[in-house]
Amino acid sequence: MYGKHSLEEALESAPHAIKKVFLSLDANEKALRDKLAKYAIPVNMLKSGREADRMVGADTAHQGVIAVIDTDTLMVDFKDFTKALSPSADTCLVLLDELTDPHNVGAIIRSAAAFGASGVLIPVHNQAPITGAVVKSSAGMVFRIPLISIGNVNYAIDKLKDLGFWTYALAMDGQKITQEEDFSKPSLFVIGNEGRGIRQKTLERCDTTLRIPMHPRCESLNASVSTAIVLYQWSVQHKNSLR
Amino acid sequence: MYGKHSLEEALESAPHAIKKVFLSLDANEKALRDKLAKYAIPVNMLKSGREADRMVGADTAHQGVIAVIDTDTLMVDFKDFTKALSPSADTCLVLLDELTDPHNVGAIIRSAAAFGASGVLIPVHNQAPITGAVVKSSAGMVFRIPLISIGNVNYAIDKLKDLGFWTYALAMDGQKITQEEDFSKPSLFVIGNEGRGIRQKTLERCDTTLRIPMHPRCESLNASVSTAIVLYQWSVQHKNSLR
Repeated sequence: MYGKHSLEEALESAPHAIKKVFLSLDANEKALRDKLAKYAIPVNMLKSGREADRMVGADTAHQGVIAVIDTDTLMVDFKDFTKALSPSADTCLVLLDELTDPHNVGAIIRSAAAFGASGVLIPVHNQAPITGAVVKSSAGMVFRIPLISIGNVNYAIDKLKDLGFWTYALAMDGQKITQEEDFSKPSLFVIGNEGRGIRQKTLERCDTTLRIPMHPRCESLNASVSTAIVLYQWSVQHKNSLR
Repeated sequence: MYGKHSLEEALESAPHAIKKVFLSLDANEKALRDKLAKYAIPVNMLKSGREADRMVGADTAHQGVIAVIDTDTLMVDFKDFTKALSPSADTCLVLLDELTDPHNVGAIIRSAAAFGASGVLIPVHNQAPITGAVVKSSAGMVFRIPLISIGNVNYAIDKLKDLGFWTYALAMDGQKITQEEDFSKPSLFVIGNEGRGIRQKTLERCDTTLRIPMHPRCESLNASVSTAIVLYQWSVQHKNSLR
């Protein structure tokens, strides 16, 4: 993970996940050092900005700040999560069906946090994991919203349906129009892979397919943009979830 | 510009903008060659994929297809654009106030095309220009929606207000809530720079500041996500614009 803002977010919301920090001389501020000392996080000094470039790539905006994060500690077990969950009409969850672009994953986590979702379900396999690029794209929101690891997408959907969730698939050719849906039950939004969409077996499990009306000159929206719009529309009808 | 899909979009919507194409051997398909020949576009063969890497960078998804585009031919002059424009309540425009991230610029152009905007106003100075990364992020929509070059943001706003446009500034601390606005006049949406937002002199010219309600755990939304949401909300109230 890299960047000053990301590290500050992590220190505030999930200091236990930070294993080690590398700082360049100009990023070595007293306030930051004090916070790192408070949580007994080991700090290594970097001799130059170029050393940071070598670690995370010259094209990343690391600002001389690199942190080693144990992303496992950020993830909540699905069983533990559902046990503690008491879903109401104001509860929504987002499930990622094998997304591959870390920027999309981060952006979706950011929107889920912004619009009051209770968590983001992330498959263990065939899915972009929580990397530095995801942390950055999420604007630190990976530390502020539960990320729930799931072994099997279809099993998770079945389980959540048992708990009363209504399952929505976001699809280009969805039967229902997003702004006409009333989202009256606890809602689970399933987001498909950027290329192939949602897998057939998963799609069959969903109660409703949702689409966003578009101008005919445009074939599709970016996965993170369409997710943000659906979550926005959901939040408009669930003001309590923004408290 | 790079990528097979981007080139196909350009061939379909703006062949005059393509000055030259470089193809690797495996991207050298007959259907593509025929189309390029039809518009008399010069083709240079690349000896290897690595040659393409050198041209646009190894981390870009060029797929062995690189095109040299004259982006000036994609831009419409503001004076010509406003002369031909007869705004109605179903007309909206997007104005970028010095955005710097090409991914945001491309994503906003894509959303503007998707939600039926009549054009995107792009300042000549201090603004990310239309590069290959913008074309890619726009999913080819740079070729399908008018891009209007403006010399001065404040002058353009004044001129559009004279033509009957109501000007909305997207701002974190906006007075009005997006979903409560009725967008009854031709609408101009002003999007601020990713870091500093909209400049003061520009903000003063806007009729209404709009915000998107968010959960307190989240400080902000990405500029392209908030723009997409406002344009979506506008399109919900202007179904004619999606025809």
